[in-house]
Amino acid sequence: MSIRVGVLGAKGKVGQAICAGVERAADLELAAEVDKGQRLEAFVESGTQVVVDFTHPDVVMDNLEFLIRNGIHAVVGTTGFDAARLDRVRSRLADRPEVGVLIAPNFAIGAVLSMRFAQAAARFYDSVEVIELHHPHKADAPSGTAYRTAALIAEARREGGVGISPDATTTELEGARGASVDGVRVHSVRLAGLVAHQEVLLGTEGETLTIRHDSIDRTSFVPGVLLGVREIAGRPGLTVGLDPLLDL
Amino acid sequence: MSIRVGVLGAKGKVGQAICAGVERAADLELAAEVDKGQRLEAFVESGTQVVVDFTHPDVVMDNLEFLIRNGIHAVVGTTGFDAARLDRVRSRLADRPEVGVLIAPNFAIGAVLSMRFAQAAARFYDSVEVIELHHPHKADAPSGTAYRTAALIAEARREGGVGISPDATTTELEGARGASVDGVRVHSVRLAGLVAHQEVLLGTEGETLTIRHDSIDRTSFVPGVLLGVREIAGRPGLTVGLDPLLDL
Amino acid sequence: MSIRVGVLGAKGKVGQAICAGVERAADLELAAEVDKGQRLEAFVESGTQVVVDFTHPDVVMDNLEFLIRNGIHAVVGTTGFDAARLDRVRSRLADRPEVGVLIAPNFAIGAVLSMRFAQAAARFYDSVEVIELHHPHKADAPSGTAYRTAALIAEARREGGVGISPDATTTELEGARGASVDGVRVHSVRLAGLVAHQEVLLGTEGETLTIRHDSIDRTSFVPGVLLGVREIAGRPGLTVGLDPLLDL
Amino acid sequence: MSIRVGVLGAKGKVGQAICAGVERAADLELAAEVDKGQRLEAFVESGTQVVVDFTHPDVVMDNLEFLIRNGIHAVVGTTGFDAARLDRVRSRLADRPEVGVLIAPNFAIGAVLSMRFAQAAARFYDSVEVIELHHPHKADAPSGTAYRTAALIAEARREGGVGISPDATTTELEGARGASVDGVRVHSVRLAGLVAHQEVLLGTEGETLTIRHDSIDRTSFVPGVLLGVREIAGRPGLTVGLDPLLDL
Repeated sequence: MSIRVGVLGAKGKVGQAICAGVERAADLELAAEVDKGQRLEAFVESGTQVVVDFTHPDVVMDNLEFLIRNGIHAVVGTTGFDAARLDRVRSRLADRPEVGVLIAPNFAIGAVLSMRFAQAAARFYDSVEVIELHHPHKADAPSGTAYRTAALIAEARREGGVGISPDATTTELEGARGASVDGVRVHSVRLAGLVAHQEVLLGTEGETLTIRHDSIDRTSFVPGVLLGVREIAGRPGLTVGLDPLLDL
Repeated sequence: MSIRVGVLGAKGKVGQAICAGVERAADLELAAEVDKGQRLEAFVESGTQVVVDFTHPDVVMDNLEFLIRNGIHAVVGTTGFDAARLDRVRSRLADRPEVGVLIAPNFAIGAVLSMRFAQAAARFYDSVEVIELHHPHKADAPSGTAYRTAALIAEARREGGVGISPDATTTELEGARGASVDGVRVHSVRLAGLVAHQEVLLGTEGETLTIRHDSIDRTSFVPGVLLGVREIAGRPGLTVGLDPLLDL
Repeated sequence: MSIRVGVLGAKGKVGQAICAGVERAADLELAAEVDKGQRLEAFVESGTQVVVDFTHPDVVMDNLEFLIRNGIHAVVGTTGFDAARLDRVRSRLADRPEVGVLIAPNFAIGAVLSMRFAQAAARFYDSVEVIELHHPHKADAPSGTAYRTAALIAEARREGGVGISPDATTTELEGARGASVDGVRVHSVRLAGLVAHQEVLLGTEGETLTIRHDSIDRTSFVPGVLLGVREIAGRPGLTVGLDPLLDL
Repeated sequence: MSIRVGVLGAKGKVGQAICAGVERAADLELAAEVDKGQRLEAFVESGTQVVVDFTHPDVVMDNLEFLIRNGIHAVVGTTGFDAARLDRVRSRLADRPEVGVLIAPNFAIGAVLSMRFAQAAARFYDSVEVIELHHPHKADAPSGTAYRTAALIAEARREGGVGISPDATTTELEGARGASVDGVRVHSVRLAGLVAHQEVLLGTEGETLTIRHDSIDRTSFVPGVLLGVREIAGRPGLTVGLDPLLDL
C-alpha cells in the first residue's frame, strides 16, 4: 500500500519539484497540495499520512502544531529552527508520541553522505583539503557546506589526535594555498557551467582518497525528502538532520 | 612511551617498507628485524611488543604460535588464511586472552574505506557503477578489489530493497557497458602511467557521489599496518580485516 | 556596433535558447524571429545580418537559398546535410561570394575541442582509452561522440606509427575491458544524475593526460552558435564544422 | 635501423633513467655513456648519432661545442640557457648546418600539451581557473608550471578579447578564491600521497572542459627526451622547447 503524501507550499518552485517527485514514485501517492492562504484541513480530509513542509519560518510552527495534533507525520525543510523552536516541537510531540517529525537543513543525500564519509576518514590521513566549485553567481566563498565539512574534519582530526596537514610552503603568492577553516585548507572555484560541487581530498603515503559530490540540479533535495517521507512513520518523535535515516 | 615493533620478513621488499615506516614514526621503535633462517627469540630478547608478519603461508602459523605463546601481539599481512587456519589462531589465543592478533587481506586504508563508503551509500542511489583503472601489466579484469566492491554494493542494494540500476541501452557495441558483477556494471581501464585506482559512481536525480581511491605506490599498505600496530594491543583476541579498527 | 541577428525556428526549444542567448550578448541584437508558417521577408525588412537556422531538413535548403539571395549570412545547425546538399549550397554561394554560411553537426565547443585535443595528443602516448558517461535514458552505447573520438584517435595513432595500447589482460569477465573502436577501448557508463560527459585518458611512462568534457545542459550549443554568428561575416563561402573557427 | 644514442651525465639519477629508457626502446641503441671526468671522444669512437645532455650549466656549452663540431645531434635538458647562450649555440650551428640541437626546459609531454591546449581553448570560455596539486614538501605555491599556464591563458584571453572570468563573490574567507595570476585564479593543493598534478578548468553556459595532467614519477621526462632523440636529426639548427616537435 502506498503512503499518502501532502505538500505544504505546493505552488512554490521547491513544492512543485516535490509534488512531481511524489507522483513519479510508485510507492507514494500525492493526497493533497496546500499553498499560502489554503486550508490545512485538506490534509485531514484527504487522509494524508505524511506532510512535506517547505514554507516559511513565520508559518512553519503553526503548521507543525496542526499536523502533530492531527496525528500527521511531517518532513520539514523550512529554515529557521533554533534550539528554542526544536524544544517547542518536542513538547508538542510529547502529547502525540506516535507522530514523527523530521527537520533537516539539507536534504541532498550526497552532501550529507560526503560530510559523514569525510569525517569518518579524516583521522586516517596525514593530509586533507577541501575544494568546492560553484557557478559564478555565488556570493560567499567558501560555501556553507564546505565550511561545515572542513569544521567537521578538523574536529575529527583533533579527536583522533592527528595534527595539522603537512605543508612546506615557504613562498606563496597570496591566496594560493586557500582559506584555512580550523586549520583545514579550503579552495573555492567559481566557474560558468558549474552548479554545486565539492571534493574532499585525503592523502597519506602513496595513496589518496577523494570524496566528490556533484549537484547539477536544484531538485537534488527531492530524493532526500522522499527518503524522509518513507521512513518518518517508523521514527516517532523529533529527528534532526538526515543523518540518522542514513544508518551510517 | 613508544611501542617496540618487530618485523618478520624484514629483508623482503614489503618488510623493508614496513621497517622504514616504523623508523619514520615518532611513536614507534624498531626493536628487532628477523628474516628467513633467523631466530624468532630475537623478538623476546629485544622486548618487542608487536610483530608485523609479511612472510609466507608455510611459516606464518608457526610464527603466530611462537608470538602468542610469548605474549607478543601480531599484525599479519601474510596470505592463505582460511576458516580452519583462523580457528587454529583463535584456539591458540584462548590460552593467552590478553594477546591481540590482526589478520587482514588488504592493509590499504583507502581501499577499505572506499568499499565501506560505497556499501553504506549504495541503497540511497538509483544507479551505481564501478570504474577501476590499472597499469597495463595487470592480468585480470576487473581487479579483485573492484569485484569485491561491486559484490558488496549489490548485496547492500538487495538488502535495502533497491532494484538494478536503470539502463535504456538497446544498441550496444559489444562490451561498451562493461562487465556485470551481480548486476553492478564494472569497467576496467588499462593505461600506461597508472598504478591502481578505483572510482565508485553513485547517482540519483540531479546529483552524483563519487568515491575515488588512488594508490600510486606499492607502499600504500604501510599506514594501514602502522594503524594495526598502534591499535592491536588494545584489541585482545583475533581481529579479521582492517574494518573493525576504522570505527566506521 | 552590434550584429543584427535573426532566428529561424524561433519558437522551438532550441530556437528559444538561441534567442535568449542573443539577447544576453552585449554585442548582438535580436532583429527578427521567424517560425513555421511565417514570412522569411521579415529578415530583409529588419535589416538582419546573420540568421541562425535550427529548423528541419525539409525546409532548410529553401531557407538557405532565400538568405544567400538576399545577402544574409547563415549559421545552420539543422541536420541532414550530405555531400550533394553541401554542393548545392556551394553553387548558390558562387553567385554571392560575399555571403558566409556555416553548417555544423555539433555546436558544443567543448566536444569539438576535446576531439581535436585527443587527436593531437594521441600519438605521443603509449595508451589511450575513452570513457563516456550519460544519463540512463540513452539508447546507444557508446555515444556517437565517443565513437567518433575513438575513431579519430585510432587514425592519428596509425598515422603517427603508434601501435595498439598495451594490455596484458588474460582473464577477463566479459565486457570488463569495454568495446573496441578501431582498437581503442571505449567504456560507457549510464548513471542517474548525469547528463553528457566524456573523458579521454592518455598515458605513458609515469604520466597521464586527461581531457574531460562535461555538458550538463541542453543549451551547451549556444556559445558555439554565437561564436558562429560573430565570425561568419568574416568567412565568406561555405564553412563546414565548427573546427575552422576555433583556429587550433 | 636503430638510432645510436649517447648519454652525457649517464651516472646521475636523470641520466640513468634516460639510459634505461633508451635500452627499452626497440628503435634506439645505447652507444655510449659518459659521465663527469670521462672523455667526450667516446661518442665519436662509438659512432653515436644523438647525444642526450642532462649535465650542468658549467659544462654544457663545452659539450655542445664538441658535439656540433663532430656532427653529432644533441637533445639538452640542462638548465641555464639565456638569450646569449642560445645565440652562441646558433652561431656554432652556422658552421654545421646539418646538425640539430634541441634545448628544452620541460620534457614532460603532458605538461607541454596541457599548456598548449589550455591556451588554445582559453578564449572560447567565459571562465577559467587552474588547480595544481603537489606533494606537501613543495616550497612554492603556485608551482612554476601553474604560474606559466595561467599567464599563457591570460595572454590568450587578452588577445581573444575575452574579459576576466565572472565572479560575484562579495564575502570571502581570506584566500578561499585562490591567487590571481594576471587575473586568472590559481589554487594550490598540498597533499601527502600526491606527486605533481594540474587541472585547468574552463567553463561556459552549460558545459565545462577540464584538462588534467598527472605526473606520478620523476621519470615522466623520459618519453619527451626519446621523442627529441627520434626527431632531432630531421630538424637541423636550433630548436627551443618541445612544442615544435609536437606539431600542434
